[in-house]
Amino acid sequence: MLKKLLVANRGEIAVRVIRAAQDLGIATVAVHSDADEEALHVQIADEAVSIGPPAAKKSYLNQAAILKASADTGADSVHPGYGFLAENADFADACTAAGLVFVGPSGDAIRTMGDKVAARSAAHAAGVPVVPGSLGRVAGIEEARHILMDTGFPVMIKAAAGGGGRGIRIASDLAEFEAAFPQAAAEALAAFGDGGLYMEKVITRARHIEVQVLGDGVDAVHCWERECSLQRRRQKVWEEAPSSALSDRVREELCQSAVRLAKAVGYSGAGTIEYLYDDESDRFFFIEMNTRIQVEHPVTEMITGIDLVAEGLRIAGGEPLRLKQHDIVARGHAIEVRLNAEDPSRDFAPFPGTVSALRVPGGPGVRFESMLYAGYTVPPFYDPLLAKLVVHGETREAAIARLVRALKETRIEGLRTTRPLFLALAEDAAVQANAVHTRWLEGWLDTHSARLVPELEP
Amino acid sequence: MLKKLLVANRGEIAVRVIRAAQDLGIATVAVHSDADEEALHVQIADEAVSIGPPAAKKSYLNQAAILKASADTGADSVHPGYGFLAENADFADACTAAGLVFVGPSGDAIRTMGDKVAARSAAHAAGVPVVPGSLGRVAGIEEARHILMDTGFPVMIKAAAGGGGRGIRIASDLAEFEAAFPQAAAEALAAFGDGGLYMEKVITRARHIEVQVLGDGVDAVHCWERECSLQRRRQKVWEEAPSSALSDRVREELCQSAVRLAKAVGYSGAGTIEYLYDDESDRFFFIEMNTRIQVEHPVTEMITGIDLVAEGLRIAGGEPLRLKQHDIVARGHAIEVRLNAEDPSRDFAPFPGTVSALRVPGGPGVRFESMLYAGYTVPPFYDPLLAKLVVHGETREAAIARLVRALKETRIEGLRTTRPLFLALAEDAAVQANAVHTRWLEGWLDTHSARLVPELEP
Repeated sequence: MLKKLLVANRGEIAVRVIRAAQDLGIATVAVHSDADEEALHVQIADEAVSIGPPAAKKSYLNQAAILKASADTGADSVHPGYGFLAENADFADACTAAGLVFVGPSGDAIRTMGDKVAARSAAHAAGVPVVPGSLGRVAGIEEARHILMDTGFPVMIKAAAGGGGRGIRIASDLAEFEAAFPQAAAEALAAFGDGGLYMEKVITRARHIEVQVLGDGVDAVHCWERECSLQRRRQKVWEEAPSSALSDRVREELCQSAVRLAKAVGYSGAGTIEYLYDDESDRFFFIEMNTRIQVEHPVTEMITGIDLVAEGLRIAGGEPLRLKQHDIVARGHAIEVRLNAEDPSRDFAPFPGTVSALRVPGGPGVRFESMLYAGYTVPPFYDPLLAKLVVHGETREAAIARLVRALKETRIEGLRTTRPLFLALAEDAAVQANAVHTRWLEGWLDTHSARLVPELEP
Repeated sequence: MLKKLLVANRGEIAVRVIRAAQDLGIATVAVHSDADEEALHVQIADEAVSIGPPAAKKSYLNQAAILKASADTGADSVHPGYGFLAENADFADACTAAGLVFVGPSGDAIRTMGDKVAARSAAHAAGVPVVPGSLGRVAGIEEARHILMDTGFPVMIKAAAGGGGRGIRIASDLAEFEAAFPQAAAEALAAFGDGGLYMEKVITRARHIEVQVLGDGVDAVHCWERECSLQRRRQKVWEEAPSSALSDRVREELCQSAVRLAKAVGYSGAGTIEYLYDDESDRFFFIEMNTRIQVEHPVTEMITGIDLVAEGLRIAGGEPLRLKQHDIVARGHAIEVRLNAEDPSRDFAPFPGTVSALRVPGGPGVRFESMLYAGYTVPPFYDPLLAKLVVHGETREAAIARLVRALKETRIEGLRTTRPLFLALAEDAAVQANAVHTRWLEGWLDTHSARLVPELEP
């Protein structure tokens, strides 16, 4: 078992990880920027070390400062949380090189899954359905035409050597495609010195479904799926477990495919395999793997009773996976919403400030994961997430009712938050019927956002 | 289903009941004394009605005022919580007579279980082991000697017509008994005009084990047991589920006996059947039934996932019992401790005052059931209970570790609380081994209480 854990993060996830470590009797070291001296994660950790100025580059992304803090405090392990250095393969390797246990998968597993083409190949090799398209480079227009039979339109053509969205074209029919393909090849050659192209079907209307996995490098299990189709600018805002859109057969196939992939890459720790699910064809497609704990992990904890962060710490400490697949039983339905310091009536403008008063909701089936306290000043430098309100009920309907009740009970005074968004969504017929897809929320916001005026909380 | 519920209580249990009602879509009416105008239960209820001066007799025990508030607000039902009017059979009858649903059992069931001799007879008739002794009156010294073979010593002799502890003698051997019996009869005749006596074995060293039941007047199920052996002056201070002292065989017998009794009295709603359990003889004995929700109900909720208050509301609304016995599965271990506004280093002297700051503990497996908020002034008129900290873990050991972590996280500034008591108990070897009985804590306090000095919370 680990003895002393440095938590290389801030905010609610740092609080979450510190709590889990303390529950297991592991000593904890918080790190913090100058902006976070008074932060809750600093208060509740056994020790705290300052690692630099507010800008994340100089503190929470400052690998040298974090490795030095680990050495100075005698930590034997580092938990990266999510964001910041959590999916930085070099940081994972640097921890290992410094004799520290990195709580998460190997640098190599992070690297493979961080490379879209490599991840796609790994998934395909493990028998996990991927979005239709080429597996790697398209040899030429003849092969491209063949692939089109699989993808249909619209289809994306992308420079294999490109990155970050550069060199992407979308074709809506064959004529467009025939024109775009040679142009894209020429452009890619000019831009990257490599004319190789890659193709993928554009799925315009799908659900986001993801599977929680736990692995110990050899064995792996799934902890069922989550649905996170309510997104704004590709950011999840409302997450559920289980997905009410899946049949038991598809759920089983999906979860089994995730286990196959986790085993194939020798995955260690808690991770998430993300899919698109198309209601009409009843098919799912691998999109990526997140090689870390996710913001929305508590919904899985609520339905399974498993403490995912604690399991990750046990595995990092050298324990083999304790959980057997047949012991992982889902019960009821859980929903998480992200209360951000943003004004949803003004295009989600950030609203940092000081919490003048706080009322935390309670009762059975309610978790409030947060770093807030009365008097806390939310710094303007980081993620706007203030709190995750997580509820559990017997059914999805009961969970939504409890969500509304708990949202009404919550008071974060002094800030504007996204609370009005969730009160409105919970009463929306499409949300209640889970008749949504990943682009649904943006359309809904076009017509509803003006009404989501937060009381400057009373 | 009920439409509008008046909650005839205050403090954490009023908050708890209001939350459950709101989760079910039932409108809520809070009542409050003049001392509770700013109370949380008043803030979160849909409506609130003032029912009188601070003294409980004039407000929370004022049946006429509560019935009037029900009529004035159009409530269709009344939840009594625990304490105050919760076990007042006349109040239950008065609610029914006024056309209100009383959330709980019938007045008759409350009456039977409120009468010790009647409850003992009902238990015996249902095949539930009772504390050895007479069933009703002892015919004379001959029968008394016969009963002694069952009870052994010490034995209690009690005036059948007495009440409230009057007319009780305890005999430690046969000589004492032979002398005491005729004296007791003569005294009883003189005091009550009735020389009838009643006998019961004095069990000096036993555990307090209780079984949670749910009934709908016809059917009944149990939700497993709780152990509440850590008591001070017969008040529970630390409660657990399950009891680690029972074998599976005894647990099954105990729980089945509770179901038999609940069915025998046509019990409706949530109730608790209390037993003494003697480790040495491996036997349990019925002591009484509490015909209401109990303070410690959340530990059962944590291990079963059942919302007991919600189930009580459903049953009161006319739904038959939804739960089947085989669906009620216990998972892990839960512990509740009662954070009171008392100074444990000064013989638990009350310490009402104002909460200057509040930090609520969080994370998975932690529930904080409370009516506290920062700025709240604890009135001096009522029960000292400020908050119930409830934790759940995979094992008893994990639950204790989580309890310690959550206690350390909890800050109730401005008051002295019993928090130091629980931090010390959690580290005590006897508590860790659950090697305790109902008198254990008082002995422990004799030698430890001076050290339980609360920081006037920082």
